[in-house]
Amino acid sequence: MANVKAAIPKGTRDFGPVVMNRRNYIFDTIKKVFRKYGYQEIQTPTMENLDTLTGKYGDEGDQLIFKILNSGDYLAKAESLKQNAESLTSKNLLPVISEKALRYDLTVPFARYVVMHQHEITSPFKRFQVQPVWRADRPQKGRYREFYQCDADVVGSDSLLNEAEFVCIYDEALSLLGLKDFTIKINNRKILSGIAELIGKPNQIVDLTVAIDKLDKIGLDGVEKELLEKGFITADIEILKPVILLSGSNEEKLLALKSILSNSMIGLKGIEEIDKVFSYLKNFDLNHAKVELDLTLARGLNYYTGCIFEVKTNEAAMGSIGGGGRYDDLTGMFGKDGLTGVGVSFGADRIYDVLEELNLFPTDVNESTKVLICVFGEMEEAFAIPILNQLRKANINAELFPFGTKMKKQMQYANDKNIPYVVVIGGDEMESGLLSLKNMESGEQVKVNVEELIGKL
Amino acid sequence: MANVKAAIPKGTRDFGPVVMNRRNYIFDTIKKVFRKYGYQEIQTPTMENLDTLTGKYGDEGDQLIFKILNSGDYLAKAESLKQNAESLTSKNLLPVISEKALRYDLTVPFARYVVMHQHEITSPFKRFQVQPVWRADRPQKGRYREFYQCDADVVGSDSLLNEAEFVCIYDEALSLLGLKDFTIKINNRKILSGIAELIGKPNQIVDLTVAIDKLDKIGLDGVEKELLEKGFITADIEILKPVILLSGSNEEKLLALKSILSNSMIGLKGIEEIDKVFSYLKNFDLNHAKVELDLTLARGLNYYTGCIFEVKTNEAAMGSIGGGGRYDDLTGMFGKDGLTGVGVSFGADRIYDVLEELNLFPTDVNESTKVLICVFGEMEEAFAIPILNQLRKANINAELFPFGTKMKKQMQYANDKNIPYVVVIGGDEMESGLLSLKNMESGEQVKVNVEELIGKL
Repeated sequence: MANVKAAIPKGTRDFGPVVMNRRNYIFDTIKKVFRKYGYQEIQTPTMENLDTLTGKYGDEGDQLIFKILNSGDYLAKAESLKQNAESLTSKNLLPVISEKALRYDLTVPFARYVVMHQHEITSPFKRFQVQPVWRADRPQKGRYREFYQCDADVVGSDSLLNEAEFVCIYDEALSLLGLKDFTIKINNRKILSGIAELIGKPNQIVDLTVAIDKLDKIGLDGVEKELLEKGFITADIEILKPVILLSGSNEEKLLALKSILSNSMIGLKGIEEIDKVFSYLKNFDLNHAKVELDLTLARGLNYYTGCIFEVKTNEAAMGSIGGGGRYDDLTGMFGKDGLTGVGVSFGADRIYDVLEELNLFPTDVNESTKVLICVFGEMEEAFAIPILNQLRKANINAELFPFGTKMKKQMQYANDKNIPYVVVIGGDEMESGLLSLKNMESGEQVKVNVEELIGKL
Repeated sequence: MANVKAAIPKGTRDFGPVVMNRRNYIFDTIKKVFRKYGYQEIQTPTMENLDTLTGKYGDEGDQLIFKILNSGDYLAKAESLKQNAESLTSKNLLPVISEKALRYDLTVPFARYVVMHQHEITSPFKRFQVQPVWRADRPQKGRYREFYQCDADVVGSDSLLNEAEFVCIYDEALSLLGLKDFTIKINNRKILSGIAELIGKPNQIVDLTVAIDKLDKIGLDGVEKELLEKGFITADIEILKPVILLSGSNEEKLLALKSILSNSMIGLKGIEEIDKVFSYLKNFDLNHAKVELDLTLARGLNYYTGCIFEVKTNEAAMGSIGGGGRYDDLTGMFGKDGLTGVGVSFGADRIYDVLEELNLFPTDVNESTKVLICVFGEMEEAFAIPILNQLRKANINAELFPFGTKMKKQMQYANDKNIPYVVVIGGDEMESGLLSLKNMESGEQVKVNVEELIGKL
C-alpha cells in the first residue's frame, strides 16, 4: 500500500476539538430555542435521488449538485452510448451512471419528507433540521463545499403567529449567543407584487425584486441602471423610487404604503399581513432584536409568497446571518398542492465568525475535562485510581495522565486542553492523603482531601 | 417542472421526531461518557479524497465505497479513453471522472486527521467522533447504506490504563442506557500470535483467527473443517482445541495460558497485557458489565495488534453492540510510522434496537413540548400570548395552537406530539384569570393561576 498524502478535498474542513466545542455551543443554543417553541428535530439522508433534486435550484444550481456514481459496473448500461464517441458527452452519460446526489439544501428534502410521510406527521408540522449540505461552488473565504444549515419550518398553518414566533426565535437565540444589536428585516412578497402592479408590470416581479434586492450593494443608481436594462422605463423608476426610499418608523412606512398601494388588492393583503405580525410582536417581549420593515428586502428564492425575513448584526461587518419566509406551494413539486408553510434558517458559519470577532464565546465552552490527575509512577497511579473513580461518580469530567511522562509535559497537556485544575500526586500526598490542587489559570495551589476536592470542582 | 415521486434511495432512512429523540438520547449519553473520560469531539468531512480511502478496506471494501462524480464536464479528460470503446471500462474510467468519495468508516479519516494535524494536536490525543458513514452494501434488515458510527480513540499512549478505561466507558454508557446484563469480551492479538507460534504456523495467523472467530456461529466442527481447508492438519487442531476451549474464571484461563504459551515471547507479552488490564479493572468499580477473557475473540480487522474488545448484551438476541482494540501502525498509511493507539466503537443502530426491544427508552425522551395552550378565538389568543411569554421565560417549552381549529383536533395534536399538559383558554378563564390545566396522561384537570402553572410545570 503506497503512502498517500494526508489531505482533504478543497472546500471541505476538519473540525478539531476547540472549533467543535464552539460549533456545538452555537447549534445547541439554536436547537434549544427551536424546541422551546415546539419545533422537533428530523434528519433526512445525505443522499437523495437525483431526480428529487434536479430542476429545483435552476440550471446553475443543477451544475453545483454533487452527483454520486452508481456502484459496481456503472458503465454496464452505457453500451450504446459507448459506440459513438460523439454522443458520449458528460450530459448524456450522467443519467446512465448516476442516480443519487448529495443534498443541496434542507428545504427540498423537507418538502420531499412532508409528502412522503404526510400520513404520519402531526399538523401543523413544526420541524427543525441541522445537517450539512454540499455545493460544488468555487471555494473561497467563507464559502465551503460542505457547510451546515440550520432550518426550522412549520407547514400546515397559515396563522401569522408563526411568522411572529420566528422573529422571537431569532431574537432569543441570537440574544442567548450574546449578540446585543441586530436587526430582523421583514418584508412581504405581496407588497412587492403590489409595487409591480403599481408600475403596471406585474409579470416582471422577478426582475424588479432581483434589482431592488441589490440596493444595499449597488446603490440607487445601480438599481436604476439594472432596471433600465431589464426593460423598465424612467417613469417606472419614478414611481418605484419613493416607495423603496420610504423612511420613518414601521408604522409610518405602513401608513404611507397603504395609500400608495390603495388600488392593489395583493399589495394591501401584504400590508395587512405585516400589520398583523407587528401587532403580535407588540405582545411578545423581544430581547435585543430591532424589527424593521425593509421594502427593498426581496430575497432571491422564487418560492416565497408572503412574509420574508433577513437578519443582520449591527456589531460586525457581515452579510445576513439568517433569513426565511413563507411559501405557499413548496410540496407541489412532489404532487401535493396547497400546503402553506413558513421557515427560517440560521447561518451558523457566519454566526461563528461574528462570535469570534466579538469575542463572545464563553470561556468555559472549550472546557471539557475539569481536572487532570498527574502522577509520578506506578504506585501513585494505583493511589490515584480510586480518587479518579470518586470524581467521575460525582459527574466530574476527569483524566489521569498515564505515568512515565515528565511533569512539565503533563502540565502542558492540561494547558493545551484548557483543563482548569490539576491534581499532582507524589510521595507526600500519598502519605498525608492531602492532594495538591492547582488552579491552572491563577496558579494558586491548595492542599485538599478528596471530599474537599469534589466540593471545589 | 415535472412531478417526481417522493422517495429516498434504498438503504437510507428518514428519521422523524420520535426516532430522532431516541437517537439523540443514545448519542448524548455516549458522548457525555466520552467527555467524562477526557475525550473531545472532532468532525471530518463527508467527502475524502478517493486515494485516502482506496486500498484501506480490501478489494471488496473498495467496491463498496460511494464515489462522487467530478463536477462540471467530468468527461473532458476522458477524450483518449472515449476513442476506444473497448478500453472504456468502468475501472479505467473511474480515476478520470472521480476524485472524491464518501467516508466509509471513521477510522481512516481519523488516521488521516492525526497525520495532517500532527503539529496542532495534544498528545496523547483523545478524540471521539459521531458521524454517518456510507457503504454500497446490499441493503437488508438492520443493514443500511448510511449509518452512524460512534468512535473514541486515543493515540500516542501505550499505557494499558487506556484499555481499562474503555472497559469503564462501555460499562458506564451502557449502564446509563439501562442495560443490566452485558459482557465485555476481551482478548489480545499477541495471545493469538502465540497460539499460531505454538502450532508452528505463525504466518497463518490470519487464517487461524478468521476461523476461530467463527466458533460461536459454526461450532467446533465448523472451525475444524475450515482450518483443514486452509492447510492446517489434525495435529494442529489437537494443540489448538484445549486452548480455545479453556474454561473457568479469567484468572484460571490466564494461569493455564501462561503454561501453555510459556515458550512464546509474544504470547506471554499478550498475557501480561491482559493481566495488567484486569488489575486496573479491579480498582475501577464497574456497574453492570461482566468482563470475560474470550480466547476465540479475533475481530476481522487486520490492523489490531494488542488488546481487542467486543461487547454483547445478554438481554436480547443481537450481534455485538460494540468493539475495538489496539493498533500499532494506523497512521503508517499516511507516512507517519510508530504511532500507537487504541479505540472502541458503539453500534448505535443495534443499541437502538435493543433499547426498543427491552422497552428501555425513558418515557420523557419523546417529550419536547411541555405544555400546549389551546384557545377558541382571537381574543383568547391575545390573552394567551403574555402567558406563553412567561412560560418560555421560565424555560418551559410551550406552544400556542393557532386559533381556528376545533378543540378536538388541538387535543389530538397534543396527543400526537406527546405533550403532557394542555391549558385551555375560553371566556371563563379570561374572566377569572384561572386557567384550566389538563394532565394528558391522567386526564386530571385543575384550575391554576399563571404562577401556579409555572410552578407545576
